[in-house]
Amino acid sequence: MPEFLKLLPPEQALILLLDSLPDRPVTVETIPTPEALRRVTAEDVLAPQPLPAFVRATVDGYALRARDTFGASDSSPAYLTQVGEIPMGAAPAFALRAGQAALIHTGGMLPDGTDAVVMLEFSSPVGSTPESGDKAAARQEIEIVRPVAEGENILLVGEDVAEGQVTIPCGTRLRPEEIGGAMALGLTSLRVAVRPKVGILSSGDEIIPPDRALLPAQVRDVNTYSLAALVTEAGGDPVLLGIVPDRLAVLKKAASKAKHECDLLVITAGSSASSRDMTAEAIASLGGPGVLVHGVNVRPGKPTILAVCEGTPVIGLPGNPVSALVIARLFVLPVIERLSGLRFRRPRPCVSARLALNVSSQAGREDWVAVQLSPGENGWQAEPVFAKSNLIFSLVRSDGLIRVPPDATGLSAGEIVTVFLT
Amino acid sequence: MPEFLKLLPPEQALILLLDSLPDRPVTVETIPTPEALRRVTAEDVLAPQPLPAFVRATVDGYALRARDTFGASDSSPAYLTQVGEIPMGAAPAFALRAGQAALIHTGGMLPDGTDAVVMLEFSSPVGSTPESGDKAAARQEIEIVRPVAEGENILLVGEDVAEGQVTIPCGTRLRPEEIGGAMALGLTSLRVAVRPKVGILSSGDEIIPPDRALLPAQVRDVNTYSLAALVTEAGGDPVLLGIVPDRLAVLKKAASKAKHECDLLVITAGSSASSRDMTAEAIASLGGPGVLVHGVNVRPGKPTILAVCEGTPVIGLPGNPVSALVIARLFVLPVIERLSGLRFRRPRPCVSARLALNVSSQAGREDWVAVQLSPGENGWQAEPVFAKSNLIFSLVRSDGLIRVPPDATGLSAGEIVTVFLT
Repeated sequence: MPEFLKLLPPEQALILLLDSLPDRPVTVETIPTPEALRRVTAEDVLAPQPLPAFVRATVDGYALRARDTFGASDSSPAYLTQVGEIPMGAAPAFALRAGQAALIHTGGMLPDGTDAVVMLEFSSPVGSTPESGDKAAARQEIEIVRPVAEGENILLVGEDVAEGQVTIPCGTRLRPEEIGGAMALGLTSLRVAVRPKVGILSSGDEIIPPDRALLPAQVRDVNTYSLAALVTEAGGDPVLLGIVPDRLAVLKKAASKAKHECDLLVITAGSSASSRDMTAEAIASLGGPGVLVHGVNVRPGKPTILAVCEGTPVIGLPGNPVSALVIARLFVLPVIERLSGLRFRRPRPCVSARLALNVSSQAGREDWVAVQLSPGENGWQAEPVFAKSNLIFSLVRSDGLIRVPPDATGLSAGEIVTVFLT
Repeated sequence: MPEFLKLLPPEQALILLLDSLPDRPVTVETIPTPEALRRVTAEDVLAPQPLPAFVRATVDGYALRARDTFGASDSSPAYLTQVGEIPMGAAPAFALRAGQAALIHTGGMLPDGTDAVVMLEFSSPVGSTPESGDKAAARQEIEIVRPVAEGENILLVGEDVAEGQVTIPCGTRLRPEEIGGAMALGLTSLRVAVRPKVGILSSGDEIIPPDRALLPAQVRDVNTYSLAALVTEAGGDPVLLGIVPDRLAVLKKAASKAKHECDLLVITAGSSASSRDMTAEAIASLGGPGVLVHGVNVRPGKPTILAVCEGTPVIGLPGNPVSALVIARLFVLPVIERLSGLRFRRPRPCVSARLALNVSSQAGREDWVAVQLSPGENGWQAEPVFAKSNLIFSLVRSDGLIRVPPDATGLSAGEIVTVFLT
């Protein structure tokens, strides 16, 4: 196992893991569109009808034939006969002939025989008709002082989407935009990927459930809950598998069972080296190809283990809650995205900020440093939250992480850095 | 109503709205911490105990008295007697005296009488004891070749958080970091703000529910669903109030009822000017102080209405689904945050990108332009998604929005712009 001897940079380690995953189709479910926020489409969403479904006005004005306005100007207006008003939400009851116009509202349906809308601002009724009554008023003469081109101020059928067009590609995470778009097409349910089940197993003799009274030397389980929240946020379905003591047989059994029940298994070790070693041994026992990466050239998180065991990705995280959460963002999230069938990854949310203090790092190693943001004179200022290892509240006090690339020995105060928001 | 005559820029309009909201306390509920992701704390979260709760080793090594290692070096090592090994998760069964050391693992509890840990790398057992048996092996002599200072390689009680310290301030939106932190303290439930109820009422004679067959000139309701998704994402509790026709009495009645049942009421008009006017009239009838802003100097979204009626914020959005969604991000989200008691707003997710094309704008007006991101040579490239008004799929095709500030007449191709991710 030569991978044990060299430490890969995180990006290469991730590629190795993703490339080793079997190319399985996602499991699909059909759910109501309004409940599909942040889910991932499991097929191309095709438009069953064109949108708009009818020719619509985009302004308030008069529907007419464009050629009836050719050459119209303030000094030489065109005169048309208003033959009626188009109601909203109903098809016009009449067609128009040459020389006729109909009052229309934004979003209204153009009557047959018309091909443009002239804005209200460029038209005015001429005088007033001597007769009273609706019929008469509806046949008023209209003066038009600007020409319109054919197609002006209207939306054609299918101008937003054509019938049969792919409107939302397979593998898209749904935002409010897509939810609205699907509903516009009458697609009240969508086929999406079932959320991948992500098993979270904690090990460590010193770890106890948070609702239990703490005895001396014990610490409460943090990773199960911070990771479950992260998995939820990433669109996975966390499966809390509890805490197992540092006994190899027990850990192996729990991990093996979990591997069959989950799409991704995440195991966090206890903080001791022996707990880490035991986690590695348990993962190695889960089947081939097995451990791909044992140790990543990153801080925090060097003892990370990446494995694929009989088709199931298994990630061994350091027990240290800070390392576990930072590393989970680097490795667990992309695997969840892959298992969700996500093909279109949107950029990770970040902001640019000016670094307030120097950050030192070891050349060759990638560092992730927690920073606190505050408004500065020219945008955000990022202040590194320096803390001893394993202080979870150092992450609570931070707004994001900055990356010190492997080829740098640090970052200088005053530099503009990209802060990945947490 | 002088506000009707001038158009405020969006930022000023928002401040006016927020400043006019009554200073009501949020409604509070107690929920299990693992379910509190993205909720907002309704009180300061205090540490019931210090963290760590005991003095812990941060490395594998020997717990000892620092002064026993003073001056230790390769040429002049210090020699200590190993008196045992500290198990993980249990208090040491013994205290140490001068000249003694105990094997300890990362995260282990320091025995009484010790004040530092020397790393395993700088220590080695001397020879091997002739006797066999655990007891004898435990009393081996240890050679130390580096001095440690008092407190080195350990975490003191309360070094992460002190007992009684505010660990998560009131008004914080909870991330995986805070969920983990609260569990570390044994806080298995948290007091959070009840999600504000956001009523969404659509009006417009042409609007029908998306599950209904489309007749000519009708369009399906998009805004109810895109806004509900946005409200959910922002931490609100959307209340879908359905579609009312453009009849003032009906709209007034529905709005008045909703105002009493919701913490925020959002009304989207139909696309016609008369529907917009009717929405404005209905909002104006809901009680004082009433309409604060009618018309904002922004595109899209100029006809936006901002009101506070008998203590309830009411926002009138344009019926155009593109305008409605863009404007909701500007005005609805901040109001939801305020009603959630959010005090610490994290930066809005964005990325920097190079603009691919010129964008023109009208001086004095703020424009929001949808852009599509693609990887460029030096980071992201942002291409404006130019489209006619009211094409919801122009938003589906975009990844974010860029802002053209009021004092600019446009942005130039090649400029670096901030893309607010949608």
